[in-house]
Amino acid sequence: MQSAHNESFSPRGHMSLQKSMKIDVVLAPDLLSVTDMKDSLYAVIDVLRATTTITAALGNGASRVIPFMNATGVLAKARSLPQGSYLLGGEEKSLKIPGFDLGNSPLEYTDVVKGKTILFSTTNGTPTMRKTFQSSGHSLYLAALVNISAVSEAMVKEAENGTFSSLIFVCSGRYGKPSSEDTFCAGLGVQKVSRILSEKEIAPELGDSALIAAHFAWSNQDSALTVLRACEHGRSLLALGFDKDLEFAADIDKFAITPVFNGEEITAR
Amino acid sequence: MQSAHNESFSPRGHMSLQKSMKIDVVLAPDLLSVTDMKDSLYAVIDVLRATTTITAALGNGASRVIPFMNATGVLAKARSLPQGSYLLGGEEKSLKIPGFDLGNSPLEYTDVVKGKTILFSTTNGTPTMRKTFQSSGHSLYLAALVNISAVSEAMVKEAENGTFSSLIFVCSGRYGKPSSEDTFCAGLGVQKVSRILSEKEIAPELGDSALIAAHFAWSNQDSALTVLRACEHGRSLLALGFDKDLEFAADIDKFAITPVFNGEEITAR
Repeated sequence: MQSAHNESFSPRGHMSLQKSMKIDVVLAPDLLSVTDMKDSLYAVIDVLRATTTITAALGNGASRVIPFMNATGVLAKARSLPQGSYLLGGEEKSLKIPGFDLGNSPLEYTDVVKGKTILFSTTNGTPTMRKTFQSSGHSLYLAALVNISAVSEAMVKEAENGTFSSLIFVCSGRYGKPSSEDTFCAGLGVQKVSRILSEKEIAPELGDSALIAAHFAWSNQDSALTVLRACEHGRSLLALGFDKDLEFAADIDKFAITPVFNGEEITAR
Repeated sequence: MQSAHNESFSPRGHMSLQKSMKIDVVLAPDLLSVTDMKDSLYAVIDVLRATTTITAALGNGASRVIPFMNATGVLAKARSLPQGSYLLGGEEKSLKIPGFDLGNSPLEYTDVVKGKTILFSTTNGTPTMRKTFQSSGHSLYLAALVNISAVSEAMVKEAENGTFSSLIFVCSGRYGKPSSEDTFCAGLGVQKVSRILSEKEIAPELGDSALIAAHFAWSNQDSALTVLRACEHGRSLLALGFDKDLEFAADIDKFAITPVFNGEEITAR
């Protein structure tokens, strides 16, 4: 009735004047090449486990995280930093890289990271952050289930104040393919930003991949841990004994941290 | 109880001897490059509208359809065929190509196609068929909502008799991106082949993209026309006046036709 009243009060005017915001999802990093990167604000997702672990590291007091395409990049950078100021972290084939201080388990990023720079390399997440920055040319957020609400709120706030016309969640996936866990997280993000925008009377316009992800999240609502245990990457991590990592990664909104990658380093904003 | 009985009768034996079949979905053609193409049987999907239209053409008596990457390929091939034996069909930007006989609307492929060869070029569907054939090197099925049950049954039957260890639905998507309508159709296919395999006591093993598509289809069950009207491509076709095409494309299992592309031509098997 409210909407009918508004329409009769301002025929078409209400519709044409209403602000809108596009929302979309990139289901795998290779699809960045067919994504319109103009005027878009991005959040990169790698639930298992890079963005979960980076959020935990910043939550436990790491001063910054620098993401690299591979272990060689980490080792080269380490030579330029003062001994004791940094830790090397990340994984190859899900396991700690030989000679590194920490693996890619969020449970390792405890008080030991306080005040440190983390030089970080993973198979899917850190390359996707670099690729998304290269394509967009401006700062991007990092999201996981553990901070999806904080990032969704920050994205809407920044988009309102800035010149962005779309909000895009980029899934790191696994070995180039879409993954259930990142799609699930992106779908929650789509639901959350849509709700916040609607409350501000900004109409959310969902692209097809945003619809696909939102329906996947809706269809698995309240089952985060089940999704992580059933997905291909989760099953592989369970076989390696990382059960506790899955529980940690499934703890929705454990942190109110919004990690931002400015092309050089990731800090908590 | 039945399962507990079997397990106590043959501990682990029942599990380890049970046959299984992988099921997956390629959500956009660019993701073929990160897909393991070995031992897989494929069905290419382009609901709006290439595979819907090809199924209609074969259903109405076309002798074969030859898919091309573009209009130039169609025109070059036409020179080698006897006048009157063929029709040129397809679209650019959703509209009939200048000089062609037919567009890409399934409603145009009536009795006029009887006994004819259709030389056919579309933006998303026909290139995806060619790319999938190039990657796999063997015959593939074409599926749409109008024949998804027939194709699903044919795929399981062929996989049982052959050496295939996985069944893969390839979505043509739109301009390289995943599309709701093809994901919906792929999800129905995943549900159908899973059900048929389970009835034959072959365990379906779903990849992440198959899970994502199956949940999307489940979440939109009985709403095919709603999905087609809400998706990006559907909205663009509605704006061009193709309302009836969407109704045609949403008519699940209208045909019991299984089009097969052998790398040269598409015929009804």
